Amino acid sequence: MKNSKVEEAEAIIIRNSDLKNIDVIALGNDMHDLCTKLFPICRSITGNGFRASLNILKNDLGLKDLRQIEVPTGTKCFDWIVPKEWNIKDAYIIDPNGNKICDFNASNLHVVNYSIPVNKTVSLATLQDHLYSLPEQPNAIPYITSYYKERWGFCLTQNQRDQLIEGDYQVVIDSTLEDGSLTYGELIIPGETEEEIFISTYLCHPSMANNELSGPVVTLHLAKWLMNLDARKYTYRIIVIPETIGSITYLSRNYKTMKKNIIAGFNVSCVGDDRVYSYLPSKQGDTFADISLLHVLNHTHPDFMRYSFLDRQSDERQYCSSGIDLPVCSVMRSKYGEYPEYHTSLDDLTLITPAGLLGAYQVLQKAIKCLEMNETLCTTVLCEPQLGKRGLYPTISTKESSAIVKDMMNFLAYCDGSLSNLEIARIIGAPLWELEDTINKLKAEGLLRVC
Amino acid sequence: MKNSKVEEAEAIIIRNSDLKNIDVIALGNDMHDLCTKLFPICRSITGNGFRASLNILKNDLGLKDLRQIEVPTGTKCFDWIVPKEWNIKDAYIIDPNGNKICDFNASNLHVVNYSIPVNKTVSLATLQDHLYSLPEQPNAIPYITSYYKERWGFCLTQNQRDQLIEGDYQVVIDSTLEDGSLTYGELIIPGETEEEIFISTYLCHPSMANNELSGPVVTLHLAKWLMNLDARKYTYRIIVIPETIGSITYLSRNYKTMKKNIIAGFNVSCVGDDRVYSYLPSKQGDTFADISLLHVLNHTHPDFMRYSFLDRQSDERQYCSSGIDLPVCSVMRSKYGEYPEYHTSLDDLTLITPAGLLGAYQVLQKAIKCLEMNETLCTTVLCEPQLGKRGLYPTISTKESSAIVKDMMNFLAYCDGSLSNLEIARIIGAPLWELEDTINKLKAEGLLRVC
Amino acid sequence: MKNSKVEEAEAIIIRNSDLKNIDVIALGNDMHDLCTKLFPICRSITGNGFRASLNILKNDLGLKDLRQIEVPTGTKCFDWIVPKEWNIKDAYIIDPNGNKICDFNASNLHVVNYSIPVNKTVSLATLQDHLYSLPEQPNAIPYITSYYKERWGFCLTQNQRDQLIEGDYQVVIDSTLEDGSLTYGELIIPGETEEEIFISTYLCHPSMANNELSGPVVTLHLAKWLMNLDARKYTYRIIVIPETIGSITYLSRNYKTMKKNIIAGFNVSCVGDDRVYSYLPSKQGDTFADISLLHVLNHTHPDFMRYSFLDRQSDERQYCSSGIDLPVCSVMRSKYGEYPEYHTSLDDLTLITPAGLLGAYQVLQKAIKCLEMNETLCTTVLCEPQLGKRGLYPTISTKESSAIVKDMMNFLAYCDGSLSNLEIARIIGAPLWELEDTINKLKAEGLLRVC
Repeated sequence: MKNSKVEEAEAIIIRNSDLKNIDVIALGNDMHDLCTKLFPICRSITGNGFRASLNILKNDLGLKDLRQIEVPTGTKCFDWIVPKEWNIKDAYIIDPNGNKICDFNASNLHVVNYSIPVNKTVSLATLQDHLYSLPEQPNAIPYITSYYKERWGFCLTQNQRDQLIEGDYQVVIDSTLEDGSLTYGELIIPGETEEEIFISTYLCHPSMANNELSGPVVTLHLAKWLMNLDARKYTYRIIVIPETIGSITYLSRNYKTMKKNIIAGFNVSCVGDDRVYSYLPSKQGDTFADISLLHVLNHTHPDFMRYSFLDRQSDERQYCSSGIDLPVCSVMRSKYGEYPEYHTSLDDLTLITPAGLLGAYQVLQKAIKCLEMNETLCTTVLCEPQLGKRGLYPTISTKESSAIVKDMMNFLAYCDGSLSNLEIARIIGAPLWELEDTINKLKAEGLLRVC
Repeated sequence: MKNSKVEEAEAIIIRNSDLKNIDVIALGNDMHDLCTKLFPICRSITGNGFRASLNILKNDLGLKDLRQIEVPTGTKCFDWIVPKEWNIKDAYIIDPNGNKICDFNASNLHVVNYSIPVNKTVSLATLQDHLYSLPEQPNAIPYITSYYKERWGFCLTQNQRDQLIEGDYQVVIDSTLEDGSLTYGELIIPGETEEEIFISTYLCHPSMANNELSGPVVTLHLAKWLMNLDARKYTYRIIVIPETIGSITYLSRNYKTMKKNIIAGFNVSCVGDDRVYSYLPSKQGDTFADISLLHVLNHTHPDFMRYSFLDRQSDERQYCSSGIDLPVCSVMRSKYGEYPEYHTSLDDLTLITPAGLLGAYQVLQKAIKCLEMNETLCTTVLCEPQLGKRGLYPTISTKESSAIVKDMMNFLAYCDGSLSNLEIARIIGAPLWELEDTINKLKAEGLLRVC
Repeated sequence: MKNSKVEEAEAIIIRNSDLKNIDVIALGNDMHDLCTKLFPICRSITGNGFRASLNILKNDLGLKDLRQIEVPTGTKCFDWIVPKEWNIKDAYIIDPNGNKICDFNASNLHVVNYSIPVNKTVSLATLQDHLYSLPEQPNAIPYITSYYKERWGFCLTQNQRDQLIEGDYQVVIDSTLEDGSLTYGELIIPGETEEEIFISTYLCHPSMANNELSGPVVTLHLAKWLMNLDARKYTYRIIVIPETIGSITYLSRNYKTMKKNIIAGFNVSCVGDDRVYSYLPSKQGDTFADISLLHVLNHTHPDFMRYSFLDRQSDERQYCSSGIDLPVCSVMRSKYGEYPEYHTSLDDLTLITPAGLLGAYQVLQKAIKCLEMNETLCTTVLCEPQLGKRGLYPTISTKESSAIVKDMMNFLAYCDGSLSNLEIARIIGAPLWELEDTINKLKAEGLLRVC
């Protein structure tokens, strides 16, 4: 089965002109492998599953600077309080015939996440009040949580539920809900300036693949790439958190620095499937995060879906909340909440592919590259420079003119100090990363300088 | 026939989800009854017909604070002069066969409004120079005026005109055109602030129903509602005037106060028929008057017609003239000049309906409500507040999220002090009046405060 | 053939409602005649052909103030250097059969413009490296230049080229490339203010008609019209230059004055054929040059083609380069580079027509008229003035209102000091030139004054 995935990835890679060598194929497979390794762990917004997953990411990718931070239960974070820590060893139901059903070991989605411990016998009628299933997706186990109200419950497929008979059921949840801490990971990669690019991803979901193993796996592979770069203009702040309470907790401890330094940020989630890309803007809508991401998607995947800020449902809710207002937008393939497998057992390892993960990795890589390249340049001579004598312009005039020359002349026309590289690239309709050679040549000739 | 009107109104009301109780049905009928009472009176831009109509409105609605103001003939008002007062007792033509035609008592539209007195015998040829009819609407008597040039004339249907025979005609117009005054009504309803909402409507047309009895009748019913409110943030300036010369006269005496205090205004005309709504923007186009009215129409009647400011033909010409430039837009059902019955005898009591009047009343009521609710709010905590612990958010996370919760979270995200409630409601696509409970709850919880 | 052209022009003129009298027909013919006279001369960016053409234009149009300026070879102009002067007496090839082909006297397009002198015998293979033809237009001689690299070459039709046989060819180019000067013409027509309208056209192409004799011929006929006006608000700066190096040279000597004074400018090129008009905006896009030209084209030729600034290929490249940034846009009929005859021998005197030249002349004339009329006016009274007592408004109110009155009232509504005439005309959708009478009447009545 792995082989067929590789072939499928290769087939897609061959179709994509920007994916050309064997390294990127390997990268896609590495990312899928790491998702596979992380998949079985039962994660939640707190607890050992989160810690174990964070450790695998750190160790497998060699990110020794990825710090694990623990915030104690009861800590006040703006309007919120860090909840008790939840851990679970086992959970199941024994039906009237003595069969074990809803077995946590078969799928950790069977237990309502954050269920309090229970061990008792109940009638079918009582049990029904604690069961969750999806009538319209009868083969899927739903993913249900109850973080802020103490409950117990089980999730199962509608088909399973329909077969339940009258009688006594023993329900067992061997969980603990106790003072402990909330865990998150933080990786600061220093750059030439204190200005920061921020990447946030979350790791609190149990066994689901697109939402959410794809997010931390793609993000931390980008971190590895960033650490290996010769130079970085920006400092990178990369965090792996539990959703919502994690971003609120992180902001409550860091928002002043973040508001001062962050020039662009991305919330990374649901980036592993093969379907079209999704973009969800920041509240402001025209930050450099938005501009760079749109610039990449418009050139590389013009069929992407454009959502409204009003459709946000993830940590961008906190990053773009009133008073925080960070320049953070979100990139996804199939957006959370919009694909049929979302928040069910169908969001498994077959939904994500090496090519899917790799594509998202490359989109974010290009967006970061655009931000790293972004600066405001001015021409050093009035009128167009004579490019012919510098070998940058055809010496014979025929009816055709090349696209490269046209892009170069258009780029120069806008280098008047009022627009940055990225804004100019957007206006002239050329991918900024394809202008890199041209810009470097013009700088080398002394025709462009930083304003 | 009245009963059938009630049934028709009820039928329409049942279709409209916002019209649910018997009170509003009664209100529609009351408004139509008042139009019926006012219909026969021969009004003009000055004279006793205007005064009689204003008195009926004042007395029937119990608006004791509605002041009647008289401005003497010859008063200079900017570039204009208050004209002589016109009154008329009778008018008719005796045809060569001795029949009385164009009888003022049958329809006051038969006489050109502001006709000077005449009593003489003329040939058919001479008479024709003083006759007005509509060849394309052969059953309609046109409405013709000659306020600023002294003329006499008669209006009749084309069918009547085609039957005129050669011979001598006695023409009689028993009118007076003498020094007197121009009359208007003004009602100031005080609020908590000196800031004003302005409503202007005109009452100078003789026996026509949509244009114009619908305007003053709807406006003064709104005045009655406003007076009965427990509290009003804004002061209301409501005027009932003759068109054009009335708004110029009123402005010449009040424009300094108006420019200082008015934050939004509406010109109300042609608001009684059952056809789609019409909106005509202010010159500026994005005043709170425009924003609130568009907000209401977009949510309640998205099929409304949107006209250009260039299409204005009523008192908004003065309110939005250069140098005056008040934030006034216009709301109509069928716009003046655009419906076939306009300015003819076909604009009668069958054209307007209880439901038609009621709908316009409710649109304006909602627009006013939006303005009264409009304020700039700020969140009191950073990040999203924890609404779950306050019972404002579901405690269990499933695949669905409610529209109310989504609207609430979106509203909060924009409460950063840069936008008012109404602007936020527009951005998030939710009717402001439906957010009232949510806003009140959030204020009560201390999560929102006026910035 | 000339007669048929006149008839064709007349036919088109009859279709155009703005072309009504015999004078304009004569003007179209005059312009076409002047193109015919200039057509045979071999021009280039320097040399006697340019000078001869400029002299004909000056003398035939009686433009005694049109100065001829010479800039010596080697003069530094920003990043460029004025090249050596090129002149040519003859050029041809003797084929192996002794026939003279590619004869300069038959078409000066046969020689690559700026070819260095040559007189030698070469094989067909060697010759091929110096030949230029167009496989997809086998009957067209291409127009090829090599200004900044020393080359020699011949241009011929693909059909001719296909018939070349093996053998020795004598190639003769009797040209000189020596120190001399670059020539341009400059005509300053003084106005009431130092503010300038700038018109630039180029004259460096050899025997081609639309690109480019149409440009200087239309431009200098406009100059003649401007000189004969009783009054001009603006000073006019009109230049006839070689393309690119000419505009760079001119700017290097004048840009400070130009940046200070020019309020609008036009680059005039390819304005002689009968096809739809083309508009290419300034970099800024909303200068008064753009606004006036778009205003004219929208009203008179709404089917015009709208190009992007990114499509520029002529002297607007320099006028709108970063740091220069003059308010210059371009008007054309078929845009350079976009019509099949472009830069080939097919761009001949049959491609341009009297009506084609005349239409462009009139578009520019109207654009200039809009600029001359442009001023910011304020009403002198509050509210609408009473136009009826001044004979400017109908004294009887019927269902219809005239378009002229509507335009007048709309114009007045916007005369609040925030917009100029031209901006108001654009907003109210009325051609500014058709408002001239109205504006003059309102000024005469004292109702409008310059703010």
